[in-house]
Amino acid sequence: MRNTFGNLFRLTTFGESHGKAVGGIVDGFPAGIDIDLEFIQNELARRRPGQSRITTDRKEPDEVELLSGVFKGKSTGTPIAFEVRNTNQHSKDYDNMRQLFRPSHADFTYYNKYGVRDHRGGGRSSARITIARCVGGALAKLALQQLGISVTAYTSQVGDIKLEKDYHLYDLGTIEDNPVRCPDQAKAKQMEELIAGVKAQGDTVGGIITCVIKGCPVGLGEPEFGKLHAALGGAMLSINAVKGFEYGEGFDCATAKGSELNDVFINQNGKISTSTNHSGGIQGGISNGQDIYFRVAFKPVATLLMKQNTVTIEGIPTELNARGRHDPCVLPRAVPIVEAMAAMVILDNYLLNMTTKL
Amino acid sequence: MRNTFGNLFRLTTFGESHGKAVGGIVDGFPAGIDIDLEFIQNELARRRPGQSRITTDRKEPDEVELLSGVFKGKSTGTPIAFEVRNTNQHSKDYDNMRQLFRPSHADFTYYNKYGVRDHRGGGRSSARITIARCVGGALAKLALQQLGISVTAYTSQVGDIKLEKDYHLYDLGTIEDNPVRCPDQAKAKQMEELIAGVKAQGDTVGGIITCVIKGCPVGLGEPEFGKLHAALGGAMLSINAVKGFEYGEGFDCATAKGSELNDVFINQNGKISTSTNHSGGIQGGISNGQDIYFRVAFKPVATLLMKQNTVTIEGIPTELNARGRHDPCVLPRAVPIVEAMAAMVILDNYLLNMTTKL
Amino acid sequence: MRNTFGNLFRLTTFGESHGKAVGGIVDGFPAGIDIDLEFIQNELARRRPGQSRITTDRKEPDEVELLSGVFKGKSTGTPIAFEVRNTNQHSKDYDNMRQLFRPSHADFTYYNKYGVRDHRGGGRSSARITIARCVGGALAKLALQQLGISVTAYTSQVGDIKLEKDYHLYDLGTIEDNPVRCPDQAKAKQMEELIAGVKAQGDTVGGIITCVIKGCPVGLGEPEFGKLHAALGGAMLSINAVKGFEYGEGFDCATAKGSELNDVFINQNGKISTSTNHSGGIQGGISNGQDIYFRVAFKPVATLLMKQNTVTIEGIPTELNARGRHDPCVLPRAVPIVEAMAAMVILDNYLLNMTTKL
Amino acid sequence: MRNTFGNLFRLTTFGESHGKAVGGIVDGFPAGIDIDLEFIQNELARRRPGQSRITTDRKEPDEVELLSGVFKGKSTGTPIAFEVRNTNQHSKDYDNMRQLFRPSHADFTYYNKYGVRDHRGGGRSSARITIARCVGGALAKLALQQLGISVTAYTSQVGDIKLEKDYHLYDLGTIEDNPVRCPDQAKAKQMEELIAGVKAQGDTVGGIITCVIKGCPVGLGEPEFGKLHAALGGAMLSINAVKGFEYGEGFDCATAKGSELNDVFINQNGKISTSTNHSGGIQGGISNGQDIYFRVAFKPVATLLMKQNTVTIEGIPTELNARGRHDPCVLPRAVPIVEAMAAMVILDNYLLNMTTKL
Repeated sequence: MRNTFGNLFRLTTFGESHGKAVGGIVDGFPAGIDIDLEFIQNELARRRPGQSRITTDRKEPDEVELLSGVFKGKSTGTPIAFEVRNTNQHSKDYDNMRQLFRPSHADFTYYNKYGVRDHRGGGRSSARITIARCVGGALAKLALQQLGISVTAYTSQVGDIKLEKDYHLYDLGTIEDNPVRCPDQAKAKQMEELIAGVKAQGDTVGGIITCVIKGCPVGLGEPEFGKLHAALGGAMLSINAVKGFEYGEGFDCATAKGSELNDVFINQNGKISTSTNHSGGIQGGISNGQDIYFRVAFKPVATLLMKQNTVTIEGIPTELNARGRHDPCVLPRAVPIVEAMAAMVILDNYLLNMTTKL
Repeated sequence: MRNTFGNLFRLTTFGESHGKAVGGIVDGFPAGIDIDLEFIQNELARRRPGQSRITTDRKEPDEVELLSGVFKGKSTGTPIAFEVRNTNQHSKDYDNMRQLFRPSHADFTYYNKYGVRDHRGGGRSSARITIARCVGGALAKLALQQLGISVTAYTSQVGDIKLEKDYHLYDLGTIEDNPVRCPDQAKAKQMEELIAGVKAQGDTVGGIITCVIKGCPVGLGEPEFGKLHAALGGAMLSINAVKGFEYGEGFDCATAKGSELNDVFINQNGKISTSTNHSGGIQGGISNGQDIYFRVAFKPVATLLMKQNTVTIEGIPTELNARGRHDPCVLPRAVPIVEAMAAMVILDNYLLNMTTKL
Repeated sequence: MRNTFGNLFRLTTFGESHGKAVGGIVDGFPAGIDIDLEFIQNELARRRPGQSRITTDRKEPDEVELLSGVFKGKSTGTPIAFEVRNTNQHSKDYDNMRQLFRPSHADFTYYNKYGVRDHRGGGRSSARITIARCVGGALAKLALQQLGISVTAYTSQVGDIKLEKDYHLYDLGTIEDNPVRCPDQAKAKQMEELIAGVKAQGDTVGGIITCVIKGCPVGLGEPEFGKLHAALGGAMLSINAVKGFEYGEGFDCATAKGSELNDVFINQNGKISTSTNHSGGIQGGISNGQDIYFRVAFKPVATLLMKQNTVTIEGIPTELNARGRHDPCVLPRAVPIVEAMAAMVILDNYLLNMTTKL
Repeated sequence: MRNTFGNLFRLTTFGESHGKAVGGIVDGFPAGIDIDLEFIQNELARRRPGQSRITTDRKEPDEVELLSGVFKGKSTGTPIAFEVRNTNQHSKDYDNMRQLFRPSHADFTYYNKYGVRDHRGGGRSSARITIARCVGGALAKLALQQLGISVTAYTSQVGDIKLEKDYHLYDLGTIEDNPVRCPDQAKAKQMEELIAGVKAQGDTVGGIITCVIKGCPVGLGEPEFGKLHAALGGAMLSINAVKGFEYGEGFDCATAKGSELNDVFINQNGKISTSTNHSGGIQGGISNGQDIYFRVAFKPVATLLMKQNTVTIEGIPTELNARGRHDPCVLPRAVPIVEAMAAMVILDNYLLNMTTKL
């Protein structure tokens, strides 16, 4: 709970945007896994600010250092601690916010809950702390690779521009070919223009990320409260700016009939499979061997580079003119975070499922 | 994890549809709360089958017995155990399913995970086990009442029939006036007819439940992984047949701009409030004192009273002709379950928040 | 925590001495284990009051009913709930205690912590609630049997009468041959007389239970906080009346030198073993394949059938003349509880260790 | 579990003796506590090697850096991460151990459990990782100070030299006046000589640490599994080299009668107290307002600077001639660790107890 995620695979995180460092400890990571540092660093690079014209201009090297738990290139089964030092914090950019609450930020709620007003950046609620998720997810991916399980996310909607087709009709290998991380290059271009336009206005825009998990064996998920999709949903909703989660046919199920939606079992070359996959690869909270897919809705970033009304800590009406370097759209940099959370959920459930029978 | 829900308030459940009993243990319930047994029994009555023509015809008395943790009408701070004996199980109805997998049910995944084929009813994956959630939620509601917090859910969509207005434009006191549990009596009638029609065809239909929490103080929620909406979402997704969750503006955020969605802080009679509530009462994962509202998508029940293709345990193609007594639409009886889960999340977070400062 | 024990194998308990029932839920029990009800009932019989002249005279049938989680004689992997109804409670025996605190009982602390004065019996602090531990332990033993692991406890000291030799010099198969549960029949007779004499005076006496675990594989234990002996010690100390725990050479290590105590590794028929076992089968918190043994100190029962001074709830000095039917010595009936807790710790750690490597 | 300690106050640790750093994350620390860095550093100095002639000669600066969770000298309620970089590791000292198992060390069990042979120092099982406990405990002490609760430990026995009197007959303010950390200066001198003599022989010696907690309010402890003494005992047993734990009269209870041991309630100036404190300040697992005291037995350090027999990884008999810089007696440096663990247990239980009533 709180700053620990997972049951057997457990990530505990720390850090604030303007503190000394962000990082975490992964406990319960299996021993004997090859730890590819370059891979981990590359996953971090995918979420790094300053990647393209549609992300924030901040330049942060975000170099990860592993402090423990790895010996001669392999995990030892002991905790893997890691940290990324903060190097490019412009705390002064936030001086004018010292005494006021930013609309739709966590300023107000954090101040009321903890009694502390850390006006610099987002503090603990900053998107910068997703660095720890990214590293934890990279470690989980390294373990999943050995199991033949892959996790791939992509931007499927930005504002009104959306992909109309199902995930299996796209080449997911092309996601990194554009700054939006969208497998449809034409749509990606439109999304990029939309974001650039919104940025020019000092405004921000929301969107949807789709995620697909392939190669997941039958049996993952721990009913009744640890259903696999509940674990995935809880994980996704814990990501900054996420407002909704659906898996399989999701909200479209509301208008469907059972006869349209049921996935009929078939015998596929001697293996029991299903003719359709409306269920999204999970039945009764347990993976059924089909692809798992889900969608995650993100709100527009709350920091606008335009004038907004607000109040001071004392409740006096005032105006906010935010400075700083902010993302006009969180989606492109959130893709690796969605993957990271999904990878950690799957690995955690893989470990849990190992103990179902002696 | 698994069959325990919550951190400080903890519900652990047990039972299968055709076993001896279903029930649970609530641990961490505050001492000194008035335990109104009639209220708890009434909450159970709201989820009971056989309430109306649009629910299953099964008649189950579902009388709850409290076994511990209450003395002279008050909670003692020790575990509250409860059980509901199963009395009306027609196991024979399921004899023809002994050797096959029902489409979109948990038969296949449970069998593969645990190596056990309990063909009678849904076993542990049956909606009958939500009885334990209902009782746990009723206990949580009794504690929340003392804190002035209310939790109210209602059916806002069945198939294509949906409420168009926001929750605050309805009189939530009228929800129990119709069998669908919908605050718009005209729409409720349409929904009822739709469900009756679907039932006549042996088919089923999905829908959406909306839930509103009023009176929640500022400060509930435990970032970064225990954000209040993540806890609510994970809880809702653990309910049988749920396929999606969104809070505040939810998936509509994808097409919105930040300038349209930000909730501006205002001074309302000396108290800091917001002029709008697009955030759904939660900012940065912590309640901000506004109403909390969210929506939960349910798929159509998977059991159809019509012929379906499937395979046997050995993978041989066959046909399924389900008998038994099943709900054509899960929504009306799921309303109290949504409330129950929400109430437990709020109480758990209320307790957690008590420890934020010494 | 609180009323839940274990990490993956989890026992949650409920019940008070004068409530309707005591019982619990075991979650995380492996699927496919043969559930021998007679064995479980027999374990309960070992802790039952009224077994002999040196235990309390209370007659309680203590019949256990399993409510879930077992199908066709095998565990299903879902929660196993069980209960024992209370049938022979003489609440009136305690009427004179309604307004006062019994010396060295939990009356005073429970009342102050929870604000509730349940004067009947021990309430939640009664030894009667160890029934749930006994059943949970019996289930764990059934799983351990399949793994070739045995857990055996015995009374090694009562008052001044103690066994002088190490556990491996006794025939542990003879423990049940006397009411004290001691493998030395002559000493057992002395202990029995001592207890009978103490009982005649209305007094009580303490003692020590030794426990031996055989067949435990190398590798159980989860440093650094879940060291196997820390888990065992925490479990033992949670048993009513326990005041101390030591494993291996225990407190005698204080006066020893390293050169006397180190266990030298040897090659025993191609397998690495140790020439001595001062470590008690655990090194660095992880089992090393040798026998695990430990000792548990019990205080004399606090309820005396003689006059004692005390105060009322209001703090007014008064006298207590306890009635009721109480054990003069807790040891004989605590033997199965020590075994039960140890069995649960070992099974839990066995499951945890399954996830060390993929 | 594993590398996380506590329920609401949670310390997660990382690091190996010859890795880059050791440290941890404290989550659930209350907001608004004054964080005195000098105090924390001083607590570390108390456990630092090289303090005196009777500890190891290693010189390690052990400077702690706090990375998060503190703003303007106060805790913010977010995770407090900290680290101590390893600077003086002589990995070469261990080269001759690459292929063999050291008697009574964790080499053998770690290698078998995790499949990794980190021959340098103790790896994760090294006493060096208690640095993280020391810092976590220092933080807990800072919070307890605000509550008027103190935790004091001292060496009460080394080999055959032991303090004969109860803790309240010593001036605990004099503990730091000698290198053994013993409140009896004459005995301390004898202990010091004993240790020096043992060191000269290349041998090691065990002992006992006593700990006293004063000012603890009534009500801490969470039966039935989270009894306060069970939490304390589990915590102490998780410290390296600990073999036993007893509280109150401990193992001496075995030979006592109830009439000798019961603590009679009295009215002390209008407050309910007890005339004696054989219970050790805890009744029924809950603190009763009296002093809490307990004793912890430590074995002699396993690393001897004399020749020992052992086997190689392949099981071939060989001889070990340990080099390196090791403590001849762990007690003096373990005193602050015992205090640290106790402080964390008390703070954790203080927080838990805040949620007993609304």
